[in-house]
Amino acid sequence: MTERGVERPAPRVVLDAMGGDHAPRAAVRGAVMAIADGIDVVLVGRRDLLDEELTAAGVSSPRPLVLHSDDVVEMGEEPARALRTKRDASIRMAVRMVAAGDADAVVSAGSTGATLAAALLELGRIEGIRRPAVGVVIPLDRGTQLVLVDAGASPDVQPDAIASYAVMGSAYASALAIEAPRVGLLNVGREAGKGNELARQAYEVLRATDGFVGNVEPGGALSGDVDVVVTDGFTGNIFLKTVEALATASPAAATRPPAPGGPGAAALLGVRGDVLVAHGAAREAEIAAALHTAAEVAAAGLSERLAERLAVGEDARLGT
Amino acid sequence: MTERGVERPAPRVVLDAMGGDHAPRAAVRGAVMAIADGIDVVLVGRRDLLDEELTAAGVSSPRPLVLHSDDVVEMGEEPARALRTKRDASIRMAVRMVAAGDADAVVSAGSTGATLAAALLELGRIEGIRRPAVGVVIPLDRGTQLVLVDAGASPDVQPDAIASYAVMGSAYASALAIEAPRVGLLNVGREAGKGNELARQAYEVLRATDGFVGNVEPGGALSGDVDVVVTDGFTGNIFLKTVEALATASPAAATRPPAPGGPGAAALLGVRGDVLVAHGAAREAEIAAALHTAAEVAAAGLSERLAERLAVGEDARLGT
Repeated sequence: MTERGVERPAPRVVLDAMGGDHAPRAAVRGAVMAIADGIDVVLVGRRDLLDEELTAAGVSSPRPLVLHSDDVVEMGEEPARALRTKRDASIRMAVRMVAAGDADAVVSAGSTGATLAAALLELGRIEGIRRPAVGVVIPLDRGTQLVLVDAGASPDVQPDAIASYAVMGSAYASALAIEAPRVGLLNVGREAGKGNELARQAYEVLRATDGFVGNVEPGGALSGDVDVVVTDGFTGNIFLKTVEALATASPAAATRPPAPGGPGAAALLGVRGDVLVAHGAAREAEIAAALHTAAEVAAAGLSERLAERLAVGEDARLGT
Repeated sequence: MTERGVERPAPRVVLDAMGGDHAPRAAVRGAVMAIADGIDVVLVGRRDLLDEELTAAGVSSPRPLVLHSDDVVEMGEEPARALRTKRDASIRMAVRMVAAGDADAVVSAGSTGATLAAALLELGRIEGIRRPAVGVVIPLDRGTQLVLVDAGASPDVQPDAIASYAVMGSAYASALAIEAPRVGLLNVGREAGKGNELARQAYEVLRATDGFVGNVEPGGALSGDVDVVVTDGFTGNIFLKTVEALATASPAAATRPPAPGGPGAAALLGVRGDVLVAHGAAREAEIAAALHTAAEVAAAGLSERLAERLAVGEDARLGT
């Protein structure tokens, strides 16, 4: 669909194999699963550990490409600070491959903060975006999907940031083949004037946004009344975690097929490249699902779509 | 347990029969159900309409006591303003019965804003409370319960208000026979320092609070890690509405018995009397459940317990 998509029909996805609670084992096994499905995956991490895991997983030649990285962001290190000095930390190396054009998308199950820091250092922000955000796709009944932005990148924001989330969320929904996405502001009531100060101000800024249909309550958002729901990162993360906590108890969740970008992988929106974050607790199946999502998102050219939208006139309204 | 409880073993509950989407029919039929269960219910509303509904419900003598009220808060009226002039609106008359000692608790399915306004006008705040809050009991699996404060009274608050919600929520939990309630702050992570500015500041104020166990994520709160979860009224209402939207899809929700104070009835905490708010969309069964809850809460002396707690030294800390 994009130029890049035409040139390179099978997107290459680079995986930070050192990120996540179950790394590197879950990363390596997830990569092996995705490769078996035809995804082109490159692993970044400590060669000795990854080779050991590949052997344990029964993978002989040809082995997937492994790029060696010695450095990791340690538990307890402040990610942005640590990454500034650790230029060859696995997550920075992985993102740098996308920046250099050597890969089309990156996946990490490491901390969102570290991945965002690496993305800002190596890729930078899309022009017109002040704050990148996390977009998560929540699979609903009957195969429909809900894009949530911001799912947790920025807990404290100004109203115009939430308006920019509408543009980002629409671009994400379009990349997932949702046409003319309807955007709602997550709120405690549907009427204008509802909510806290931030929501009321965001509503006013959002009025001018393409596809904005007004406030939406949690029940409406989860019933498919909108395709995209926007809110600040604190409220969005509470909403997402409440859905995750209860979704496993739902009969629909147990029987429906895994949806692209569903629980387990989130997109960093607003950086100049396609960056996916898997759950820290992701096991191999979720890593494999995140690699699939990354390949789809890269094929659709998510970050390029977003940059194009902003370039055709949205930027002025976003206060840049 | 309280003096009032000893003197009056069967609490009298007054119902604003004009409040709610399905009033007065749902109110009258719910009252008839609760009366059949032995609850002492008084109805306030337009006598002609209530008599008609009682006849339609097949209730002959002895009929429940009906107190006539001509005035209602109309749709679109700002409740606090309307109630200041409409002294004999049904919700004000109902609350006034509690203020006068003629009834022990009040239930309304009218708007929370109108009920709160009536409660502030007729009962006033408990000393030491700056902002009343809404406490909702969420029934969990295995018969356990979670008390959520604030479920939606005040969307924008200061950190010390959230600390006062911990005291209110503990009193509510105690009235529901939960011993030594554990209180958590609803947050996006368990570690100190997580969350938005408001949550981080509230955490610091809460440190000194009896029973405070730290931050709790939505999944932890819904798994019974705490008995009481506190947050601002915007986040609390988003959390509650998300739970409500998904709870009906849960197998546990379909099979468990109705829990006291469960979805359908919320307590106004911090006013000098026991005031319950049922869902605006409540049907007769939910009205009956709310009347049961009101009788239980009144028997336990909820507002008296809270006033006692605040009188024994909590008030200094709450900044009064």
